[in-house]
Amino acid sequence: MRTSDTHIGFADLVLHLKERFESVGADPWIAACLAENCALCEQAGTLSHGVFRMKGYLNSIASGWVDAKAKPDLNRVSQSFLRVNGRNGFAQPALVRARSELLRMVDETGVAVLSMCNSHHFSALWPDVEPFADLGLIALSTATGGTSVIPPGGNRKVLGTNPIAFAAPVKGGPSFLIDLATAAMSQGDVTIARNEGRSLPMGIGVDHGGQPTSDPSEILSGGGILPFGGYKGTALSLMVEVLASALSGGQFSHQVDFSNHPKAETSRTGYFLMLIDGGRGQDLPINERTMEFFHAVRAAGVERLPGDRLHAARRRAQTVGIPITETIRDFLAQ
Amino acid sequence: MRTSDTHIGFADLVLHLKERFESVGADPWIAACLAENCALCEQAGTLSHGVFRMKGYLNSIASGWVDAKAKPDLNRVSQSFLRVNGRNGFAQPALVRARSELLRMVDETGVAVLSMCNSHHFSALWPDVEPFADLGLIALSTATGGTSVIPPGGNRKVLGTNPIAFAAPVKGGPSFLIDLATAAMSQGDVTIARNEGRSLPMGIGVDHGGQPTSDPSEILSGGGILPFGGYKGTALSLMVEVLASALSGGQFSHQVDFSNHPKAETSRTGYFLMLIDGGRGQDLPINERTMEFFHAVRAAGVERLPGDRLHAARRRAQTVGIPITETIRDFLAQ
Repeated sequence: MRTSDTHIGFADLVLHLKERFESVGADPWIAACLAENCALCEQAGTLSHGVFRMKGYLNSIASGWVDAKAKPDLNRVSQSFLRVNGRNGFAQPALVRARSELLRMVDETGVAVLSMCNSHHFSALWPDVEPFADLGLIALSTATGGTSVIPPGGNRKVLGTNPIAFAAPVKGGPSFLIDLATAAMSQGDVTIARNEGRSLPMGIGVDHGGQPTSDPSEILSGGGILPFGGYKGTALSLMVEVLASALSGGQFSHQVDFSNHPKAETSRTGYFLMLIDGGRGQDLPINERTMEFFHAVRAAGVERLPGDRLHAARRRAQTVGIPITETIRDFLAQ
Repeated sequence: MRTSDTHIGFADLVLHLKERFESVGADPWIAACLAENCALCEQAGTLSHGVFRMKGYLNSIASGWVDAKAKPDLNRVSQSFLRVNGRNGFAQPALVRARSELLRMVDETGVAVLSMCNSHHFSALWPDVEPFADLGLIALSTATGGTSVIPPGGNRKVLGTNPIAFAAPVKGGPSFLIDLATAAMSQGDVTIARNEGRSLPMGIGVDHGGQPTSDPSEILSGGGILPFGGYKGTALSLMVEVLASALSGGQFSHQVDFSNHPKAETSRTGYFLMLIDGGRGQDLPINERTMEFFHAVRAAGVERLPGDRLHAARRRAQTVGIPITETIRDFLAQ
């Protein structure tokens, strides 16, 4: 895909982003990894985690808050359980480093769990799980982050937006893909709404007094986002803190403290990934079972499944290029 | 705890229930397992899955729909992955049979996944995961069931209430416990509302035309329950179908067909359980980490955490006995 006035090719965007990561001191290999991850989000229409995030990435790296040269420690503490210390680096390059060990674990035992501490996850989760589903595995991941969520009844922020991602192979189609914040809205989307001067539906967040508000500025300054789905979403958000932070020994969302580091935007917390090889001891391949199931769901009138919009945006971008938004234009002009 | 006019002791209730299970032909050991499970739900105030369920259990067994003498097949297809064929029996006795193998797997590899097909799960999920958390493990389980849920945009029921349960150890207190239907309300609670003549809040379900309704009768006859939390709850419900049914080779919720068996009330589908030994390679025990975390959440003003109500009801029942509801009185009088 060639770059034009209105669209940019994927490889072009990756090169631009990689250069910028390197310009603030990132290891070239880590720069490439983060650039590709960011471009994948932009390409698939996950704009809240695409180029929009670059300022935060670059500020955090340039100011020394996060180490973009970190070499993660990998420690296979038991046959199916890999502990990773991100050593204050980003989660994505650590995941790439862990990949061959994870695949060996799944091959040997059918299951692999990765538990990571001391890592920064500033992107969407779906790019972490999709490649494993594309290999035929089931993948589930969660991550904590800085506090932005006030649980119902609470008087201050104590939870991250705490996303959950899930991917599974589907015969004859792209992998089934879920990536959802357990917050009623992601921090990124609230910020975009504020930047665009849009108000939000009630139920997304509360102001500094804990009262419901539709103003994203009030939610972001002193208030907080609510979990989605009331007490059930709250329960899942708590589960994410246990899986990503209690299990890994990483910081909980509420322990992330930016106060003495004004340029810091990424959260050093914890991360969880589980892989299952569903092919073991099964007559009918799992990707045929999922194909059959999603066919039935669509036949019941459900027009859009999780991941559909993402896959469609990516297909479009693969044909005509990635739309150059104002965010991209401003970023490239800097 | 002694039985009185208003309360019944746990052991007494188990004996009554066991007798009834045996009277319809259940293997004594399976009868004991199901009776204890049902009494545990009643004791903890999970009334929708307590004695209220007995009629469904007994009809399903007596009519030959489910096999209450089934001997499950266990097959450890890889080091960390146990496949179980429930052979048309209940999931709970199969889980008890699998328990020692699961604990061996966790001991050997740090992780165990159980994937079960051909099983009926007619109870709450929390009794499955809590005992593992009480041993210091993290446990996650999901199950599918007969269709009762219409996803947003759908024109017919295609999903089960598809619960997710999660448990983790907490130092100095009972285990952290989540058990939530990905439906806006469990089928049991909608049925109780109908039986009690109560109307429901809007957003719980739709009528046969897919229109929102507050009438539980309309939801149960021709209509359907909605997933909780809009498209996010829907996504998690789809995830449950993949984990519990696609992975296991069991029936999906939409494949359960009661139409030629009027006495059938339990669903033959699939089941998923994952266990992680969080103690591996961790300096600070996970139960201290969770204790620290939940303390912080309570300090932020959150008065009730998932599991609190259940633990409190159980403590009360352990002191004064299980309250004899009208459901229990009617059941014991039969």
